[in-house]
Amino acid sequence: MTNYNRKMRMGMVGGGLGAFIGAVHRMAAALDNEIELVCGAFSSDAEKSRQSGEALYLPPERVYGTFEEMILKEKALPEGERMDFVAIVTPNHMHYPPAKMAMEHGFPVMCDKPLAFDYAQAVELAALQKKTGLMFGVTHNYSGYPMVKEARAMIATGQIGKVRKVVAEYPQGWLATLVEATGQKQAAWRTDPSRAGAANCVGDIGTHAAHLLEYVTGLKITEMCADLTTFVPGRVMEDDANILIHLEGGAKGILHSSQISVGEENNFNLRVYGETGGLWWHQMEPNTLQVFGLGNTQRIARTGIGQLSESSLLATRIPAGHPEGYIEAFAILYRNYARTLRSLLKGETPDPRFTDFPGIEEGVRGMAFIATVLESAKSQGKWTKHL
Amino acid sequence: MTNYNRKMRMGMVGGGLGAFIGAVHRMAAALDNEIELVCGAFSSDAEKSRQSGEALYLPPERVYGTFEEMILKEKALPEGERMDFVAIVTPNHMHYPPAKMAMEHGFPVMCDKPLAFDYAQAVELAALQKKTGLMFGVTHNYSGYPMVKEARAMIATGQIGKVRKVVAEYPQGWLATLVEATGQKQAAWRTDPSRAGAANCVGDIGTHAAHLLEYVTGLKITEMCADLTTFVPGRVMEDDANILIHLEGGAKGILHSSQISVGEENNFNLRVYGETGGLWWHQMEPNTLQVFGLGNTQRIARTGIGQLSESSLLATRIPAGHPEGYIEAFAILYRNYARTLRSLLKGETPDPRFTDFPGIEEGVRGMAFIATVLESAKSQGKWTKHL
Amino acid sequence: MTNYNRKMRMGMVGGGLGAFIGAVHRMAAALDNEIELVCGAFSSDAEKSRQSGEALYLPPERVYGTFEEMILKEKALPEGERMDFVAIVTPNHMHYPPAKMAMEHGFPVMCDKPLAFDYAQAVELAALQKKTGLMFGVTHNYSGYPMVKEARAMIATGQIGKVRKVVAEYPQGWLATLVEATGQKQAAWRTDPSRAGAANCVGDIGTHAAHLLEYVTGLKITEMCADLTTFVPGRVMEDDANILIHLEGGAKGILHSSQISVGEENNFNLRVYGETGGLWWHQMEPNTLQVFGLGNTQRIARTGIGQLSESSLLATRIPAGHPEGYIEAFAILYRNYARTLRSLLKGETPDPRFTDFPGIEEGVRGMAFIATVLESAKSQGKWTKHL
Amino acid sequence: MTNYNRKMRMGMVGGGLGAFIGAVHRMAAALDNEIELVCGAFSSDAEKSRQSGEALYLPPERVYGTFEEMILKEKALPEGERMDFVAIVTPNHMHYPPAKMAMEHGFPVMCDKPLAFDYAQAVELAALQKKTGLMFGVTHNYSGYPMVKEARAMIATGQIGKVRKVVAEYPQGWLATLVEATGQKQAAWRTDPSRAGAANCVGDIGTHAAHLLEYVTGLKITEMCADLTTFVPGRVMEDDANILIHLEGGAKGILHSSQISVGEENNFNLRVYGETGGLWWHQMEPNTLQVFGLGNTQRIARTGIGQLSESSLLATRIPAGHPEGYIEAFAILYRNYARTLRSLLKGETPDPRFTDFPGIEEGVRGMAFIATVLESAKSQGKWTKHL
Repeated sequence: MTNYNRKMRMGMVGGGLGAFIGAVHRMAAALDNEIELVCGAFSSDAEKSRQSGEALYLPPERVYGTFEEMILKEKALPEGERMDFVAIVTPNHMHYPPAKMAMEHGFPVMCDKPLAFDYAQAVELAALQKKTGLMFGVTHNYSGYPMVKEARAMIATGQIGKVRKVVAEYPQGWLATLVEATGQKQAAWRTDPSRAGAANCVGDIGTHAAHLLEYVTGLKITEMCADLTTFVPGRVMEDDANILIHLEGGAKGILHSSQISVGEENNFNLRVYGETGGLWWHQMEPNTLQVFGLGNTQRIARTGIGQLSESSLLATRIPAGHPEGYIEAFAILYRNYARTLRSLLKGETPDPRFTDFPGIEEGVRGMAFIATVLESAKSQGKWTKHL
Repeated sequence: MTNYNRKMRMGMVGGGLGAFIGAVHRMAAALDNEIELVCGAFSSDAEKSRQSGEALYLPPERVYGTFEEMILKEKALPEGERMDFVAIVTPNHMHYPPAKMAMEHGFPVMCDKPLAFDYAQAVELAALQKKTGLMFGVTHNYSGYPMVKEARAMIATGQIGKVRKVVAEYPQGWLATLVEATGQKQAAWRTDPSRAGAANCVGDIGTHAAHLLEYVTGLKITEMCADLTTFVPGRVMEDDANILIHLEGGAKGILHSSQISVGEENNFNLRVYGETGGLWWHQMEPNTLQVFGLGNTQRIARTGIGQLSESSLLATRIPAGHPEGYIEAFAILYRNYARTLRSLLKGETPDPRFTDFPGIEEGVRGMAFIATVLESAKSQGKWTKHL
Repeated sequence: MTNYNRKMRMGMVGGGLGAFIGAVHRMAAALDNEIELVCGAFSSDAEKSRQSGEALYLPPERVYGTFEEMILKEKALPEGERMDFVAIVTPNHMHYPPAKMAMEHGFPVMCDKPLAFDYAQAVELAALQKKTGLMFGVTHNYSGYPMVKEARAMIATGQIGKVRKVVAEYPQGWLATLVEATGQKQAAWRTDPSRAGAANCVGDIGTHAAHLLEYVTGLKITEMCADLTTFVPGRVMEDDANILIHLEGGAKGILHSSQISVGEENNFNLRVYGETGGLWWHQMEPNTLQVFGLGNTQRIARTGIGQLSESSLLATRIPAGHPEGYIEAFAILYRNYARTLRSLLKGETPDPRFTDFPGIEEGVRGMAFIATVLESAKSQGKWTKHL
Repeated sequence: MTNYNRKMRMGMVGGGLGAFIGAVHRMAAALDNEIELVCGAFSSDAEKSRQSGEALYLPPERVYGTFEEMILKEKALPEGERMDFVAIVTPNHMHYPPAKMAMEHGFPVMCDKPLAFDYAQAVELAALQKKTGLMFGVTHNYSGYPMVKEARAMIATGQIGKVRKVVAEYPQGWLATLVEATGQKQAAWRTDPSRAGAANCVGDIGTHAAHLLEYVTGLKITEMCADLTTFVPGRVMEDDANILIHLEGGAKGILHSSQISVGEENNFNLRVYGETGGLWWHQMEPNTLQVFGLGNTQRIARTGIGQLSESSLLATRIPAGHPEGYIEAFAILYRNYARTLRSLLKGETPDPRFTDFPGIEEGVRGMAFIATVLESAKSQGKWTKHL
């Protein structure tokens, strides 16, 4: 009988040398000692995949030239040896093929966001996931921050009352010029409709904002009014999005994301105002949550200190004042994924404290968000219903 | 011949004991030793006006029961004694009557914002001002901050390139409950359509945001899409406004103001992103201007130190690190108004360094903004042209 | 019988055109409508005094060539006309002569800090003040901030428990080079022992830190160990001071002030830690007080909002989020001085809510602090008792 | 011939379940895919060691009951299998024995700080290291932050001129009450002289401040004047330290550390002022470095963006605005250690870009710092020479 009291074994699709998000996935997976990288198809270029595997100290025989080869050959290995799940960290257009094939061969998936190239693919993957019952994670990673979980817990337990207003802003400045024309790889694929899908700014970061907003408030966006702009000459897709939103229960809000806001690094912020309180969270200072109350009280909740929700404490590793950052938050998704996967492999009921990570539903919703924004942007009418 | 080498003499309409903005106008007028308060009709209640005048150490004979009385009796005083101008600090519905009568009797006016009860009144006042040629100031006071002037100067001289995106936000939280039902006077008149006019949140603070945005960028709002909400049960007018805006030259933006954002004090912020740079200004830390450049440079401009524009330096009184605040910024409008008025009274050409204060045009534009927001809010179409 | 239901009349010694602190005193005195400037001897240069008086719109006959002339001629005016008190805003070596003469002629005094040229002068002035019983204020102005008063009230009412540790830091950078050699007037007299007295950095800003620390904690410094340095070649007096301090009741602390800390504007900060809580206050963001508690609670107290002490509220003029600054805090001293003086002139008991301003005792203590620091700096022993 | 193109193999002494710093070392070692944990003696309690090893998914045969057993048995394994180095993460009194034995058996060491129980042990370890020539790292981890390396590079290349003043502050509040009496393990050993050595606050965090200060400025502390206090009744060793320091080249400074500063988490800050510039770094916002220049310029250097030194860039993994934190900085030491060790094992010259991590010299210096502080605290003389 297979022993699962071991690290979960990860195979990776994409994430070759020089890739940004692939390296993040690897660090996040490694951090909590729950996962080991055992194989990979790191690039569509077989030689580059080989070099990447070597740099990652993988045995040559588990570095594959294609994801198809990886899935087939790993499948052929004995159960105690083969990878336990597949992490997909390729550009958007290459999420669907390996995700589909992995599930078809019985492998659980952890997929980078947005889930797919378009909404139709996302729906198809969801159907396949439902059919196979395989675990499927989508790395809307900002939900892994302790203070994000604290905000969610506070709202869920009524600590700011019924939500009235939400402001989600996600400005970046890195695409303020035609960077994609300079050979910068990140910029190149994200601004290319054949690889990124129908949206650039909205797909890359707007979906993070939409997910986090819904995750924290527990409310769905019901309709929106979007104003998209392509500011940089020579660019095909939007690089700026300003969106009015309506949410369930009568809440209103604003969601804006931008890649041309010169000087902005990754300035993702979320503010939620309820009937009796308010919350501010800033991704670039992620260990602080400002908490406001009706009696003009203002307190600072901080990662790892004072009275905090269990969900927040479970996402914290070190004492307050020792800043945890982006990788740590990302790693919470992997840690929870791995622990839940291990329970399932052992035939046990997963510990509900660790099942909190975005899955295929959140992935599909992200693709619906993109589709709705694009439809609203084209409409002359004010409000467009969320798909 | 009249000697104008003296402080300018101010008569005040409104601003009796307990009023917020009246006291601010008096402190602002007093700060720079250019103006003295010589008379007032501080309340529509004659006894309250008398008490207010006494508390202000005014001679009883120059404390009037009505603004009509004040204007007529001051007019009857010799030129060297009578007030030089009238400051109007009443609720919105009481701006037009004294402003009209003051101009009809030859008195320059300094009027609180918004200029009038409705757009028609504003247009009428503007026509009268044009006819009489009298000085007319409107206290869009946030334009008096040194770092606001620095931002304006930077944009005007091309330091961030062509403007692409603007985010003006103005959240407050003081009306998150039905404060007006508790007898709070500020809340009572601002939420009462018979005194405030057709808008509450948009009129009180949205107009500040619109003015500052246009003042700093030098661009006019051309069209908008507004989403207004009344969140607090029992309230008649909107207490929250989310607005997408388009500006001249293709710039886009967001303007949102709120009075139900629990925890927000007076958190007015402005961010402007151009082709080659970005600027952030925060009213609650007004002496800092963050300046971003394309090469990923980030510098901090600070009131009174380093390389600054002349307009910024002229709005600064004390060395860097000794914070100047809201009253100081407000006082810049009064100082400039007084110096310009003195020059005119002396028959001299005003020093162009001190003619920079909002006038009747800005006042009319503010009323047009309110009217357009309300029209857009009712429209099912996406974009509404600015009046 | 004289009517004192009027503004208090201020005569000023020093503060001619171009002076920094003189202008601050005038703005502070004017802000709250309690004081009017009626006369002055603005410069030791009679022509410059005349020009300054003209620029301040004073009648020529009340602009004097010397402080002696001012005191004598004002004394000769009828009681209802003459100045009510004298504000002294000259360099340190010129505090004692006018302060002494003013008291000898029955005039109350408001004097800039440090009180005198040396400790002996201070003691003499204190004796004269005691003998005459005249009001005497010393502008340790940082004690006028609302959040400083809040901190003091919190400690006085036991909200952080017995004080254990204090960190007072006051770095500036403006004298990092030999600015005094460039003709900069502020630098010239402050670094000149014949005008500033025996200390530069310690006298100019160290005394502010010492006063505030004692004001807020209610504890006196008992002994100290000082390390003074003159970093800039060509300078005579110290431009940097690092001091270990012991306070009453076993509290310990650090007080450091500097004028060579490049980049620092006026970065005066105070932190106090008690047995059950901690407080942080930053002069450059003066409307915020961070309040820590043993249970790892952290709350933000803000000027003018939430639960605050009466002393803090009385030092606040406008709603929260409309920043009050340096001049406003300075003006609290003048407002309190004026109200107390008016009560005394009217033969009434002063309202105890307004008697809170630094007086001659605080002035003497500041001079004792300077003397002790200098003695400690020369000593090879570790601890030197506070004079 | 042994293949070293693999992860370096780490054996761990200490760091059983529930330990703080052991878990940090493991996460730091894992993050960059350069090291794998292969064995450990995680506790002096053999059963606890076994449980810890199981939770870490180690094979039972490589989980040892004592460090002696681990060293002997690993030594007996074939070269291609045995651990490559030993990480020591025990309380201070247990650094020396395993470090000594490891070196005596030819194993390189990575040791937590402070290096030893007392200065004599440190000197002895240094002698042994010199004799054996084995790699020896000491985890003064704050030197791993990108902006710390940037500060060091800026000073080394003269960008702020000759250093004049340094302020290193390290307040914490977690020991403001007698936590050690509640069974809290971290508090228990750190405040126990038989396990922590002669100092508590100075040893635990003061040594970090001293190391970073010397690392960043490149200057050694030459003499000091220390004031130590034990504030909490029932505690044996100091919980607060205020120290005046002199550095090479005439620089002066202050170093203070505290564990009783209620509300402080891990608020380690460093400010350095030179003749032409100033730098501020705050550990709790580690990705920002404020840079001041003589012309009153103020710029913000940020991790991973803009013009940065190579040393800073090499310590950065992800794009600006994605915050890297404490674990990431700690991991830089392990990454550099592993890369240098691999080069040495391969017989190659280590890449000088990765030899930058604290070694035995820094460890000895830390113990000398502790000894000097304690001597100074007892002295009645002002200055005590650094050992």
